[in-house]
Amino acid sequence: MRAISGLSAFPITPSDADGRVDADALRRLLEPLAAAGVDSIGLLGSTGTYAYLSRDERRRAVAIAAEAIGGRVPLLVGIGALRTDEAIRLAQDARAAGADAGLLAPVSYTPLTEVEVEAHFSAVAEAGRLPLVLYDNPATTHFRFSPDLIGRIARQPGIVAAKCAAPDPAHAAAGVAALQAAVPAGFPIGFSGDWNVTEALIAGGAAWFSVAGGLFPQTCLAIVRAVAAGETERARMLNAELEPLWTLFRTHSSLRVVYAMADLMGLCRAEPPRPIQPLPPEVVAEIARTVRHLSLS
Amino acid sequence: MRAISGLSAFPITPSDADGRVDADALRRLLEPLAAAGVDSIGLLGSTGTYAYLSRDERRRAVAIAAEAIGGRVPLLVGIGALRTDEAIRLAQDARAAGADAGLLAPVSYTPLTEVEVEAHFSAVAEAGRLPLVLYDNPATTHFRFSPDLIGRIARQPGIVAAKCAAPDPAHAAAGVAALQAAVPAGFPIGFSGDWNVTEALIAGGAAWFSVAGGLFPQTCLAIVRAVAAGETERARMLNAELEPLWTLFRTHSSLRVVYAMADLMGLCRAEPPRPIQPLPPEVVAEIARTVRHLSLS
Repeated sequence: MRAISGLSAFPITPSDADGRVDADALRRLLEPLAAAGVDSIGLLGSTGTYAYLSRDERRRAVAIAAEAIGGRVPLLVGIGALRTDEAIRLAQDARAAGADAGLLAPVSYTPLTEVEVEAHFSAVAEAGRLPLVLYDNPATTHFRFSPDLIGRIARQPGIVAAKCAAPDPAHAAAGVAALQAAVPAGFPIGFSGDWNVTEALIAGGAAWFSVAGGLFPQTCLAIVRAVAAGETERARMLNAELEPLWTLFRTHSSLRVVYAMADLMGLCRAEPPRPIQPLPPEVVAEIARTVRHLSLS
Repeated sequence: MRAISGLSAFPITPSDADGRVDADALRRLLEPLAAAGVDSIGLLGSTGTYAYLSRDERRRAVAIAAEAIGGRVPLLVGIGALRTDEAIRLAQDARAAGADAGLLAPVSYTPLTEVEVEAHFSAVAEAGRLPLVLYDNPATTHFRFSPDLIGRIARQPGIVAAKCAAPDPAHAAAGVAALQAAVPAGFPIGFSGDWNVTEALIAGGAAWFSVAGGLFPQTCLAIVRAVAAGETERARMLNAELEPLWTLFRTHSSLRVVYAMADLMGLCRAEPPRPIQPLPPEVVAEIARTVRHLSLS
């Protein structure tokens, strides 16, 4: 597959109360992303609730997505699991169902050591036979990568990129440089945490792994393309316009906010998997006002 | 069932590389606990790797344990899961297989709110129809209970006790008092984190949920009984003798250390589920020296 770059759009995975994926709703979410020409789609990311879905439903979701996208856009798929053997099976499933790469986060219950995480990545890369994106998200996995460890894993066969939490914008240049110094030249490091990403892209980040991009691909593509064209101030201006959205994400979590937005936009009526709850009506009303006020597309 | 008190012994759950529980090895671990007269057995706790085992294997483990214990000692069973519906099924399974109570930890991937955790407990208590012990272990669940939330959940129907991380011994009295002030009078609050528990018991903690107790029930019962008899200094002396063991637990994690110890003691040859790795030979040698030096039983 092509090197990972640009906008990677991360949609929710609509499912019912029993954890069964809603195929029609998933297609409705994916079609505008492929049509907008995002650079990749990140299925079953954290916002895609991969951790809450069974192996069967994850396999179904990949098959539904691969068919809906029809090769128009590379498909990244979250294959993280607590057990190494389960992550290997999920990588094999995703590959068989049409994924182009896997996103592997070191999901933990018992806190893991660096040695354990390194071995986990090499085992899944080798036996899963799917190109892997190292997925660093300490807020959900509770494992904190050192730049050195990212560098060692980036040198393993089969590891094609890293998805890291974007540094605080005030320190974006130093944060991005420290990561890039740890990996081989040209190894793509992209970022998530929508509200912090624009500065990380300006500082040389290879990609934006975006929750907002899962609903508003054009809006997010405009920022990515402005950065790529060297129009830094335009990128910053576009990002500043989205500050009300970023405030909602920071306050209520991007996952809960995009569930409410997908409902408000008529794309699906799904709720997040319990115990995660939908946001209360007063917050949904605030989200509705924000969506109306911004010109998101 | 009787109110939870005294020593609750938490053994490992020996399983093979595919996550299949070793019934014979589990029986070999359980028999000395029941014979020693521990006050309860905590099957499938964090050290019992509940988070890493399938629903089928967890059900099998409970059935094996219930049969092995034969009603001699109350059986607590970890029923935590990321999804509320899964935790309900696990509670129902555990009840059907002979558990006396469930241990429910708010396992998380997406960080949870207090409202979500409160609803999770009430849903599982109601639909699971198994008395529940609130299990607070922020190092693994990444959810931090406030004393107020523990108090609200303690007042829900079906919640019979709480298992909390023992406060730092220097602040044991204040820490235990703050928790007891939040719950109804007489609601049992017990503690885990072996190296900190003796002072929490002296400060009025109702029970010791013990990893060491899963291998050395007599050694741990001696401390619990000394505290119960008001022999505070004797309890402190016995605990001080175990400091080399506590140092190993703090340094290498109690889970990894007890796997090595069960092997050294000839009880089973199981390794923890990957990605968790067995300790390296030089640490195992240090553990062997410590076990020989201490008179553990």
